[in-house]
Amino acid sequence: MRISIVNPNSTRSMTETIALAARQAAARGTEILAYQNDAGPVSIEGHVDGALAVPGLLHALAIAERDGAEAHVIACFDDTGLEAARSVLAGPVIGIGEAAARMATLVARRFSVVTTLSVSVPILEDNLQRAGLSDLCASVRASDLPVLALEADPEAAERTISAEIARAVAEDGAEAIVLGCAGMAGFAQALSQEHGVPVVEGVSSAVKLMEAAVALGLKTAKRGGYAAPRLKDRGFVYPEGMVAEPELPA
Amino acid sequence: MRISIVNPNSTRSMTETIALAARQAAARGTEILAYQNDAGPVSIEGHVDGALAVPGLLHALAIAERDGAEAHVIACFDDTGLEAARSVLAGPVIGIGEAAARMATLVARRFSVVTTLSVSVPILEDNLQRAGLSDLCASVRASDLPVLALEADPEAAERTISAEIARAVAEDGAEAIVLGCAGMAGFAQALSQEHGVPVVEGVSSAVKLMEAAVALGLKTAKRGGYAAPRLKDRGFVYPEGMVAEPELPA
Amino acid sequence: MRISIVNPNSTRSMTETIALAARQAAARGTEILAYQNDAGPVSIEGHVDGALAVPGLLHALAIAERDGAEAHVIACFDDTGLEAARSVLAGPVIGIGEAAARMATLVARRFSVVTTLSVSVPILEDNLQRAGLSDLCASVRASDLPVLALEADPEAAERTISAEIARAVAEDGAEAIVLGCAGMAGFAQALSQEHGVPVVEGVSSAVKLMEAAVALGLKTAKRGGYAAPRLKDRGFVYPEGMVAEPELPA
Amino acid sequence: MRISIVNPNSTRSMTETIALAARQAAARGTEILAYQNDAGPVSIEGHVDGALAVPGLLHALAIAERDGAEAHVIACFDDTGLEAARSVLAGPVIGIGEAAARMATLVARRFSVVTTLSVSVPILEDNLQRAGLSDLCASVRASDLPVLALEADPEAAERTISAEIARAVAEDGAEAIVLGCAGMAGFAQALSQEHGVPVVEGVSSAVKLMEAAVALGLKTAKRGGYAAPRLKDRGFVYPEGMVAEPELPA
Amino acid sequence: MRISIVNPNSTRSMTETIALAARQAAARGTEILAYQNDAGPVSIEGHVDGALAVPGLLHALAIAERDGAEAHVIACFDDTGLEAARSVLAGPVIGIGEAAARMATLVARRFSVVTTLSVSVPILEDNLQRAGLSDLCASVRASDLPVLALEADPEAAERTISAEIARAVAEDGAEAIVLGCAGMAGFAQALSQEHGVPVVEGVSSAVKLMEAAVALGLKTAKRGGYAAPRLKDRGFVYPEGMVAEPELPA
Amino acid sequence: MRISIVNPNSTRSMTETIALAARQAAARGTEILAYQNDAGPVSIEGHVDGALAVPGLLHALAIAERDGAEAHVIACFDDTGLEAARSVLAGPVIGIGEAAARMATLVARRFSVVTTLSVSVPILEDNLQRAGLSDLCASVRASDLPVLALEADPEAAERTISAEIARAVAEDGAEAIVLGCAGMAGFAQALSQEHGVPVVEGVSSAVKLMEAAVALGLKTAKRGGYAAPRLKDRGFVYPEGMVAEPELPA
Repeated sequence: MRISIVNPNSTRSMTETIALAARQAAARGTEILAYQNDAGPVSIEGHVDGALAVPGLLHALAIAERDGAEAHVIACFDDTGLEAARSVLAGPVIGIGEAAARMATLVARRFSVVTTLSVSVPILEDNLQRAGLSDLCASVRASDLPVLALEADPEAAERTISAEIARAVAEDGAEAIVLGCAGMAGFAQALSQEHGVPVVEGVSSAVKLMEAAVALGLKTAKRGGYAAPRLKDRGFVYPEGMVAEPELPA
Repeated sequence: MRISIVNPNSTRSMTETIALAARQAAARGTEILAYQNDAGPVSIEGHVDGALAVPGLLHALAIAERDGAEAHVIACFDDTGLEAARSVLAGPVIGIGEAAARMATLVARRFSVVTTLSVSVPILEDNLQRAGLSDLCASVRASDLPVLALEADPEAAERTISAEIARAVAEDGAEAIVLGCAGMAGFAQALSQEHGVPVVEGVSSAVKLMEAAVALGLKTAKRGGYAAPRLKDRGFVYPEGMVAEPELPA
Repeated sequence: MRISIVNPNSTRSMTETIALAARQAAARGTEILAYQNDAGPVSIEGHVDGALAVPGLLHALAIAERDGAEAHVIACFDDTGLEAARSVLAGPVIGIGEAAARMATLVARRFSVVTTLSVSVPILEDNLQRAGLSDLCASVRASDLPVLALEADPEAAERTISAEIARAVAEDGAEAIVLGCAGMAGFAQALSQEHGVPVVEGVSSAVKLMEAAVALGLKTAKRGGYAAPRLKDRGFVYPEGMVAEPELPA
Repeated sequence: MRISIVNPNSTRSMTETIALAARQAAARGTEILAYQNDAGPVSIEGHVDGALAVPGLLHALAIAERDGAEAHVIACFDDTGLEAARSVLAGPVIGIGEAAARMATLVARRFSVVTTLSVSVPILEDNLQRAGLSDLCASVRASDLPVLALEADPEAAERTISAEIARAVAEDGAEAIVLGCAGMAGFAQALSQEHGVPVVEGVSSAVKLMEAAVALGLKTAKRGGYAAPRLKDRGFVYPEGMVAEPELPA
Repeated sequence: MRISIVNPNSTRSMTETIALAARQAAARGTEILAYQNDAGPVSIEGHVDGALAVPGLLHALAIAERDGAEAHVIACFDDTGLEAARSVLAGPVIGIGEAAARMATLVARRFSVVTTLSVSVPILEDNLQRAGLSDLCASVRASDLPVLALEADPEAAERTISAEIARAVAEDGAEAIVLGCAGMAGFAQALSQEHGVPVVEGVSSAVKLMEAAVALGLKTAKRGGYAAPRLKDRGFVYPEGMVAEPELPA
Repeated sequence: MRISIVNPNSTRSMTETIALAARQAAARGTEILAYQNDAGPVSIEGHVDGALAVPGLLHALAIAERDGAEAHVIACFDDTGLEAARSVLAGPVIGIGEAAARMATLVARRFSVVTTLSVSVPILEDNLQRAGLSDLCASVRASDLPVLALEADPEAAERTISAEIARAVAEDGAEAIVLGCAGMAGFAQALSQEHGVPVVEGVSSAVKLMEAAVALGLKTAKRGGYAAPRLKDRGFVYPEGMVAEPELPA
């Protein structure tokens, strides 16, 4: 099967990291199609970055579907544009934030999220609420690391995240940890061993959940909120200048 | 004081109706600046329309602020882009959905929303939840009227809405009604008399709440989720081709 | 328009402060009618003070309506007798507690209340719950200042409140502050500048919300919980000895 | 032990019915002291009646405590003045509404309340919410019987209530029924047999719960919301004209 | 009347302590039948102990009913097997956890539970949630005392519990304390005096509530979740080897 | 990888159906080990059946782990014994009820469950609540089909279920359907086509989620509620007579 993963931001190194993590998680027989939203911001930190990334993201997802992807992963922990994507695509879609949290609930009663900046905390809290996951979430903690700092100095970033995990376990009663940024994917295994709790990462979680959904033949429900947009009297098209043709990293 | 009102869709007749309703509601001394998002869809029905309208809407709001508006109204009942707008602007911002619901809570314990299409129901329910208003909302009812049908045949539209109000009062225990679309503004008074319940309309509610906020000297909190976006290492600008310069209806 | 404001307690200096704050907040064209409940306790601290204040308060409000007031403000942060007042009056009514909290939600996702005594905390929490505002409230903090201490030594009181605000911002994630007592009205502006967060005060918020409600032609819904009391078989009148004729401060 | 029961309204026939029901429920060794609030309305229907009844009710409860009552029952299903009473008395206090609902939870997962007028429904819903019981309550149904109609034509009243119980069981999934008015006490047994579900009545439930509390040596917590009122700088007394000396029915 | 109390674990000294506490709490005229689940674990700490105790517990309860008990108490704070017991017995059943929490709500707005091991905390939180009591519960605190340590060194145990109570009152706003283990029954009175808050114990609370339920003629509702099990096509009996005949301590 | 699936009841034909459904859902490379709880009831309908099934179920799961299963599925829609199983096993465990509901949330905002008997409805509602899924569940509907009727007359059963699905979609706003019994597994595809909504079945959902969890290296968190049981001073073993050695269907 083919599963697409779209980085809603325009930072190539992150797209490559994400594509690699997705391919490592994929089952034999799953082909990962990776896309980058060249019209997006360099990282998604807060409501404005997220809102501006969505049109290009939807464009990339439409191309992914044309390219044969049967399910789709939005590779930002904010689950940027998730509900619009579910409305516009036939196959199932998940964001890495919802994916990681759902996997965490399979192995722990209560998890904490460790994310980057505090500006993202209310966004993640809203997403968890909407997904019915807030009662199972002990805390959403910001490490005050900008997204791109994860790449600039990974070792320092990992130490900062580790300290925040320690606080989540000791003070908030977290039984498992969800890493709250696509850029943290590489740290999961070491942090799990260090702290003795499950540490769940979103890219791999999303790939496995989409593989499961495709295997079960599930498609997004089209009654209710995810109904496809109606055709309007006057045409509306994706503005041409807005989205670059997304690229597939090899 | 100057208050801006932005129609996130591109239908001029709706922009004019909205501007008129806002000016009728405004206090002496309040100047209403009205804008239209020419880059938006002809109407906003569901997640996709909403997501595609946001970049142009934010652009129009930025121009409104440059033009001296001290507070801002987003004239779509879905409160399209509200949180991004709060992050990017200095003055307070409200959507007409949140505004109408908040005014209803001043005069009734429990209100119902009567909106257009069922595709909008989950969006409105999410907005009410996030605004802490869902416990006070008896129901969100769809009348199955497309937004633009409100203009095409207002009398038929008003009859359909009236029937839905009757059901909300009789079956859901609604003590007041919130009209769930900017295009319904003209029906409020007649429907209130017909049904003997307060009928609250969003455009006028939003104008009065923004006048109140400006008079009290309130500005959007910038700690937490509405913090202004950080400047990124690599530049990101509003894509030039995406938004037309919004026009002010006279 | 005429808006009444009733101090449910019998302390004249507080009534005067409240009347002054209301008049400063009122728009040109709004006449503030101020009343004092001479039959009430000297301050309202806890359930018993509140319960004993209500009959006199309702009497004062009835006089205010007879005097032509189109909307009404209950000038105690506990929103003393609010629901009975809504049942007995034609025009809309608000308490300063609900008013301040509703204004805070227009500019912040999450606010804290800083009030006087801890005996009031559960009352305020219940009020916020009933008004659908508890999910947006980060904390209700008691400063352990009796109501009348606010007048006796305002400078010391302001320092105490300021320290509590600092804790609400640092520990509870408050993005805005609601001042939880009518007697704190004078401190709002300075505290907002000191802490860099919106600080919302109830008297002015209530006046602006009632001006908005009157301008929109809204009256309290009379279906459901705010239905007017039925006439009983045997008469029941306000006991004569109970309420003094309330006075209007000039 | 001595337990007081206070009818917050001034209708003697109801006081006598209530006193009788309490004495029938009391264990050997429990003396029931019954009081009537002569300063109250003839029945309590809605917020205004309730608010006006409280000062006289508190006065009657203070006399009951002076007379040696170790625990107290407020004999109105609205739990009129319950929180103020808990603040002012040493012994435990319960209202018959909370009492009946708490007993119902011992024998059923989900109960419905059948009460008199619809004006009381929001009051009961608020009380259940505050007592943590709303998740266990399937519905609060109004039978549209005024309180005093229960006495005027008991047979017709019972038929009306029975029809409402049938609907609660069939449509709302009620597994048990709580009778929502002190005046319905006599109907419980017959209705339980007729419908095959537990039917819980408040007066007897309250007496048994207060017997249990006294036997366990429990007194109302005085930390937090039920703290006794502070002595004020200027005196405040129960207004003399307001409350008649309550009488004890023999 | 006869009330049974069943210790779901197999530790005779605990059964005797529990039986004694129940008899001390019982009214004159109440006969306590005490049983021990010899097939159960020596103490119930966590999900596994609880699950393995249930078949023997149900067997003991069936014998209690055969012996004429009209109501039943499950003497483990986890309310082990409560819902199955309610389905299988005619008379009302309560666990000591639910009983203590319900009594606490009669005298305090907000209580904390102090229990033994942290493995029990989620079980108690789930029970409180299901019983509609979680909003009234300030915290569930583990003292890290194993159940049997309460007997081995009662003085040390009481000191540990006392320290935890102090934290619940100071940090969590507890107005009353619920002792979260049958083995703590003896400490209630002294701890209440030491901390000046009501301290509620489960065995005595459960006995009084079951006396109340029997006096009121209440039986468990058999519509809905507590419906008696259907007779199956193929027989299923309590496995013979599983439960010992429970003994009655004198 | 090896995944175990345990039928907690003793009906061989159901075990075989379940094993077949699991093997059809399994990926190449996944070996399904199927077990039957010969000590369990012939079907699990309500609290008592569930409680009596758990010891044998835990025994079967322990054998499954000894046999090399890395993850485990409990094949009853009530998720019988799930929390005890998570405490006692190293690998992740899921029940088919939680599994189906979690998969449904990936493709629909709101799902309904269609189950067998009404006695199971409160159990399923509690499970959904504990799993944080109740806000996403539009309704739990009972079809009044006993579990074994699904096998006795599958065609009639499917018609009954189909009628219930139609009501869930029309009246409750369900966007997807969860089949609430292991015995309904075979109907999913036809019912999905008939009603045009996703129909999710538990056995296959559980197998895919456990494959995903194993692939991600996740194990159940052992901090908090799922901590392994402590070794007790006095030994407690699975009673020998209680559980038969479970058999593996070929």
